[in-house]
Amino acid sequence: MSEIDIPEDHPRYQSLLTRHRIEEGVENGITSKQGLIAEGRGEAFDYLLGERTIESADRAERTAAAYLLRAEHPVLSVNGNVAALVPREIIELATVVNAEIEINLFNRTPERMDAIEAHLHSHGAAAVKGRTADGRIPGLSHERAKVDADGIGSADVVLVPLEDGDRAEALAAMGKIELVIDLNPLSRSAQHATVPIIDNILRAVPNIAAHAKDLADASDAELTDIIDAFDSSEALTAAEDAIRTGRLS
Amino acid sequence: MSEIDIPEDHPRYQSLLTRHRIEEGVENGITSKQGLIAEGRGEAFDYLLGERTIESADRAERTAAAYLLRAEHPVLSVNGNVAALVPREIIELATVVNAEIEINLFNRTPERMDAIEAHLHSHGAAAVKGRTADGRIPGLSHERAKVDADGIGSADVVLVPLEDGDRAEALAAMGKIELVIDLNPLSRSAQHATVPIIDNILRAVPNIAAHAKDLADASDAELTDIIDAFDSSEALTAAEDAIRTGRLS
Repeated sequence: MSEIDIPEDHPRYQSLLTRHRIEEGVENGITSKQGLIAEGRGEAFDYLLGERTIESADRAERTAAAYLLRAEHPVLSVNGNVAALVPREIIELATVVNAEIEINLFNRTPERMDAIEAHLHSHGAAAVKGRTADGRIPGLSHERAKVDADGIGSADVVLVPLEDGDRAEALAAMGKIELVIDLNPLSRSAQHATVPIIDNILRAVPNIAAHAKDLADASDAELTDIIDAFDSSEALTAAEDAIRTGRLS
Repeated sequence: MSEIDIPEDHPRYQSLLTRHRIEEGVENGITSKQGLIAEGRGEAFDYLLGERTIESADRAERTAAAYLLRAEHPVLSVNGNVAALVPREIIELATVVNAEIEINLFNRTPERMDAIEAHLHSHGAAAVKGRTADGRIPGLSHERAKVDADGIGSADVVLVPLEDGDRAEALAAMGKIELVIDLNPLSRSAQHATVPIIDNILRAVPNIAAHAKDLADASDAELTDIIDAFDSSEALTAAEDAIRTGRLS
């Protein structure tokens, strides 16, 4: 048993855990209405994918780990759904790859910033960026453009799970290496990513951390080999094929 | 321009209107958290379907109209998302086919019953059933089983848009002719329907009403011909094929 009263081998365990965390997120002022709708869209795509990490997603997760380990200044971007769904897991990943965590919200309000920061602290996060908001992403309207100048503003590698398409596109246009977790292989976020990870965030974040631990002693040359071998359009095609041809019923 | 400030020929008009109505539904206490997640799942399936009424869905909608017109006692079941998304449209359909409207909620609370009833009245509904709750659907737990004995309890044909799988299955087991609107052709609701309508409720309900108007003077024999020509497994297969092979990008 875990935080919800359902055995971990229940066939719908992951889905029920997701629901539980997202509803708690609403109660805590972390998850927005748009976040709930986005969660439902993700559920449908995950259902079509077979609710599993497909082989190409595992390769994308290993590549993301290599990018994060090789980075000068990696930042993990956290929005409401990320904080609600994988608070412990994202903090664990930040520790493993020595990355910063920055809160970035599509609907930015002081209340949601506070609630998400408190939620991350309660799960063990030390420093959390995103409050200074002294940097801007070019090409976005005022509130949506805000980042910390010494956070995402100066990052070379950014993990953006469940990011809005406009922001993902604008971050890519800044020349950042963008690692995107998104269950829709045809979303603009996935299409603009350096590494599109077409997987459920509950499976993806721990798996990136597991790959990072596995690669902890790898040389820069070994990391670069993994990175060079990755083909983003192949990953997108494989995910689309899985959605198209997977066993639905 | 309509209730939202977007021209009706905007390529995302229907999607934006849906979002607007569903968010308003939350503000009015009509749409639940589960309802928002369900809305997101529907969006993903509609996206894969191409956000259009496929030919087999149009046939299903005409068949649903024939069943409603031929019925002794047709009832349209309304939950939170139905009330939020198509309040006028469902009242119009009830008028055209001379059906009753009954509120049925997966998460039944007096507050949500009140809010939905008030919402339907404000859109012109006269009598709305669902408050008496003196009937029970066999095989469901107490709150979930409640229906009006002289409403769904004694209906021969029930339209259940966006219904939960358990309830759809239990209604089918009662021997009722069940017309289901659901965007997932593999959901239990769709699988157990007499007529599965794999379409967005915003397109489906007005189209059933349009077919009913067109069939207003049809004889019982003509209605029966339409009904007999309909094949539910063919409709489910056609929808699954459309999802599998539709142009995604």
